[in-house]
Amino acid sequence: MGGRAGGSVTGRLIGVGVGPGAPDLLTLRAARVIEGAPVVAYPTLAGSPSLARAIAAAHLRGQAEEAIDLPMTESRLPAQAAYDAGAARLAGHLAQGRDVAVLCEGDPMFYGSFMYLAARLSARFAVEVVPGVTSVAAASALARLPLGARTGRIAVLPGTLPDEALRAGLLAHESVAVLKLGRHFPRVRAVVEALGLAPRATFVARATLPDQEVLPLAEAPLAAPYFSLLLIQREADPWT
Amino acid sequence: MGGRAGGSVTGRLIGVGVGPGAPDLLTLRAARVIEGAPVVAYPTLAGSPSLARAIAAAHLRGQAEEAIDLPMTESRLPAQAAYDAGAARLAGHLAQGRDVAVLCEGDPMFYGSFMYLAARLSARFAVEVVPGVTSVAAASALARLPLGARTGRIAVLPGTLPDEALRAGLLAHESVAVLKLGRHFPRVRAVVEALGLAPRATFVARATLPDQEVLPLAEAPLAAPYFSLLLIQREADPWT
Repeated sequence: MGGRAGGSVTGRLIGVGVGPGAPDLLTLRAARVIEGAPVVAYPTLAGSPSLARAIAAAHLRGQAEEAIDLPMTESRLPAQAAYDAGAARLAGHLAQGRDVAVLCEGDPMFYGSFMYLAARLSARFAVEVVPGVTSVAAASALARLPLGARTGRIAVLPGTLPDEALRAGLLAHESVAVLKLGRHFPRVRAVVEALGLAPRATFVARATLPDQEVLPLAEAPLAAPYFSLLLIQREADPWT
Repeated sequence: MGGRAGGSVTGRLIGVGVGPGAPDLLTLRAARVIEGAPVVAYPTLAGSPSLARAIAAAHLRGQAEEAIDLPMTESRLPAQAAYDAGAARLAGHLAQGRDVAVLCEGDPMFYGSFMYLAARLSARFAVEVVPGVTSVAAASALARLPLGARTGRIAVLPGTLPDEALRAGLLAHESVAVLKLGRHFPRVRAVVEALGLAPRATFVARATLPDQEVLPLAEAPLAAPYFSLLLIQREADPWT
């Protein structure tokens, strides 16, 4: 529990997966860790409210809060500076012996920003991770599409991949989840359609949130929100 | 809530992910659904105790229980017969209007046996799924190895794949989890070593259970237990 630095007991940096969106998809451990942590941190984007904080709101009971605000940009330097500054603030708490729970949408190790904080702090402080339910698991549950079956292969691909890499991934796996659709969605959609896989593709947006959408690709909107993904299941019958 | 068949309200078949092993990695929803279900079902293997039941034991309060016992065999026919018989027993409860919670290790849609029951019952009864924390998320958390980062690709591959398919999968993705090691472990290990990826491979057995193991591949035992996997992360520094 915690480490030692300079002779005094230091706090732990704990990445806590809060699941895909529904507050009751937190784990019992995540609830307990958040409730017991003297400091709760979470990323925000250009001052917007934090979804991770909203998911975990029922477990916030006056803990100190640290929002790590990230600039709205695709370039990496400003984000790196924001993580530097955020990590320095968290280091202050940790050095004083206070555990810091970092709220992470989904699972901290699954395309999360927690790793950027851990990278800056793991040499000096103990790091722990509480795994969570991913958006992919939530989307599979909503769509009732088994992701992995028997000896099937699964790929998780970012929509940022070039067409040829997307094609190769779609053809080499029985099940594929394509994340990070955003502005790449029209291109990803065209690749899936050209392979004849549109009838086997399901679009899921904001899985488990009140305004979730689960649609065959043919009925999906033209623009994909940030929290959306495609599930492609090449086997004929999802329930056999 | 439930469906209708023959004019009367029928129960729901609910696949409930109970997570990788630690009882506090159940979600709040899973705990509530299990506690509220009049019938709890789970697979057993040749009469052995059910791990899923053990994980969820704190939430069992005298509900009716249905063990669906599967024969110890790799051939499919006897297993199909066992699912037929189990589904028929669950159908009896569902037809009487009783919800049935089927306990599933990890996540029901991630290489689970729930799909074999749903396939037999979804035409007659409402099916729901409560997603769970997978063994892969748990292993990543324990090993502190980010599975997906930035625009990296992830593959989940069964160890049953032939060498060439394993090689192709290992080379085409930044992160790979190899499941279902069992008797294929020596061969999988040889493929990973031949690609020079052994220094980037972590062996995780029984993640989050009291006797869990997290070891560099070079220190892994020669025989892999049923609940074990390999994580291969090709990027240099997991925390950057």
